[in-house]
Amino acid sequence: MVSLTLTGGTFLTMAEHLSQRELDYPFKLLEYFNGFRISEAIFSACELGVFDLLLQSQKPLSAVEVAQKLGTSEDGIERLLDVLVAIEIVDVEVVQGTAFYSSTDVANLYLAKTSPKSLHDLIIYNSQTIYPLWNNLVDAVREGKNQNEKTFGLPSEEIFSAIYRFKNVFIKCARSSRFASYVILRCVAGCSGALARELAKEYPSSTVTVLDLPAVVQTAQQHFAQQDDTICFQEGDFFEGEIPPADLYILARIIHDWKEEKNLKLLKNIHTACHPGGGVLIAEALLFENSRGPTMVQMFSLNMLVQTEGKEHPPSHYTHLLTEAGFRDVQVCRTGKSYDAILALK
Amino acid sequence: MVSLTLTGGTFLTMAEHLSQRELDYPFKLLEYFNGFRISEAIFSACELGVFDLLLQSQKPLSAVEVAQKLGTSEDGIERLLDVLVAIEIVDVEVVQGTAFYSSTDVANLYLAKTSPKSLHDLIIYNSQTIYPLWNNLVDAVREGKNQNEKTFGLPSEEIFSAIYRFKNVFIKCARSSRFASYVILRCVAGCSGALARELAKEYPSSTVTVLDLPAVVQTAQQHFAQQDDTICFQEGDFFEGEIPPADLYILARIIHDWKEEKNLKLLKNIHTACHPGGGVLIAEALLFENSRGPTMVQMFSLNMLVQTEGKEHPPSHYTHLLTEAGFRDVQVCRTGKSYDAILALK
Repeated sequence: MVSLTLTGGTFLTMAEHLSQRELDYPFKLLEYFNGFRISEAIFSACELGVFDLLLQSQKPLSAVEVAQKLGTSEDGIERLLDVLVAIEIVDVEVVQGTAFYSSTDVANLYLAKTSPKSLHDLIIYNSQTIYPLWNNLVDAVREGKNQNEKTFGLPSEEIFSAIYRFKNVFIKCARSSRFASYVILRCVAGCSGALARELAKEYPSSTVTVLDLPAVVQTAQQHFAQQDDTICFQEGDFFEGEIPPADLYILARIIHDWKEEKNLKLLKNIHTACHPGGGVLIAEALLFENSRGPTMVQMFSLNMLVQTEGKEHPPSHYTHLLTEAGFRDVQVCRTGKSYDAILALK
Repeated sequence: MVSLTLTGGTFLTMAEHLSQRELDYPFKLLEYFNGFRISEAIFSACELGVFDLLLQSQKPLSAVEVAQKLGTSEDGIERLLDVLVAIEIVDVEVVQGTAFYSSTDVANLYLAKTSPKSLHDLIIYNSQTIYPLWNNLVDAVREGKNQNEKTFGLPSEEIFSAIYRFKNVFIKCARSSRFASYVILRCVAGCSGALARELAKEYPSSTVTVLDLPAVVQTAQQHFAQQDDTICFQEGDFFEGEIPPADLYILARIIHDWKEEKNLKLLKNIHTACHPGGGVLIAEALLFENSRGPTMVQMFSLNMLVQTEGKEHPPSHYTHLLTEAGFRDVQVCRTGKSYDAILALK
């Protein structure tokens, strides 16, 4: 009834061997120290609209022109543009001593707001929420709990209040699976509804419901109200309220936010509501079974410490959790990209 | 009278070509987005004393042992240690299912506090001062000025108040040059006096004076009072006060902090005070003449925007400035490391 096909891939790793050369001079360490500057240079350019302007412009622009159009200082934008050139996100050509900047394919595809693959909202979320949280990583490690209170003055148990500070936040859930036609899909905690939109387009005869907290549903509806009449939004708390019956439940980056007992309760409730022969599809970043990688997932797990009450897990944890909740036939598929998939049937 | 010998080297660059593969999936971009997490993982481990503990320990330690000794949560420190393993700063071996962590040569050399090459204080400075400043890069670019006021509530013209918030701050000036013996050296704005200490050791018959603001001198004296009776500390404002006569003036990362008119005034004052045949040695990170690199120097220049009233410059700027101030025979030496050197004679 439900099929899942994912292509394999290599795992992202940031590690390079720190060699003897590093003992002579700490080149790689200094790059690591500068990591936050690279992140913020891209985040700030996004926020200022640099990539949108360069995409829309019919010709390369000087720093003076960019400054005029974006309302920034000339000196500041020139330094920022030069850094973006250095990391190959912006192109430059120098004509008679003046530098003219233009966008790259990568920037047009991922950094301009209008691109369907735009990461703009993810970037704003990183810049305004996660970056300041990580300045309190020391306390997160000491206390073993998230730093929402210290960073934003928000109660630590309300792990999403920091995100909801920004009404326009909406994190794109990458669609990483194929389903047979005519399956009724329900997406628990659909966040922005981006995944729901993709599914409704692919399977027009299916019913797609997004169940999430009122604040999230209202934001998502603003994004999708016009173009997707096929998607039904339902306000509710998936830990406390009743879960509507469906064939497939998709939990995209839900489990990693919460403690084990909450997740078990949620999955048991889903199992009860699920149509016989249906199932649950979990999208999460999977650790290796021995927890020794992938690097990016270890990084996510540290992020969960700073930001939530959960963590990232290896496949066996999900198998255990799903089996305990009553599901069977657990299949784990690594995608080689940011998020992997776990499917289980009732 | 003064000789300057520097070894050449390669330029640090963080850029990797963003290829067609990036258009299929933004692996490199996602690494850039995660740059701040890598920085903060190292900074936080330093602040928590992870590298000191691992250096001192006679055997590899489990996460539980590290947590006990450092007074942190077990879960938090385990996630942090796993990230440090992933970026090859910490080693791990798994014995009967338990991970035991030990230090690497690179961590012992640069990250443990007791190492003579320790970057510990630079890291604390990055974490507590520069990281939060860069969260306001958007405003720095918009306004074309530093963000000390917004970030720390400090007047933007007091560019070093943010640093002086931390009494123990002292940034090591790498000694990157050799001088003939018997040269009397004076180090203008010696900051911590680390450079002065190196020089006094190398040239025991020379007089080394550190001239800096009272707050800096007092901090530096705490560090060096016992071991270096040969170094003389002098409190003063090198823009306003009288500059003492000497053979060589060393300005390590001074010029890049200030506007051109201030620098010109300072160099003219130094020229007046300088013994005939003496000179000035400037240590700064040099941009290429066309400003198209090195990447790290472009990054520093953006940093100067966020933090100071200055910027990084190409060699011609220093030649112009020094000539204007009355100096001659300007020699520029690129080191291939973080800071380059410019020497000029009276």
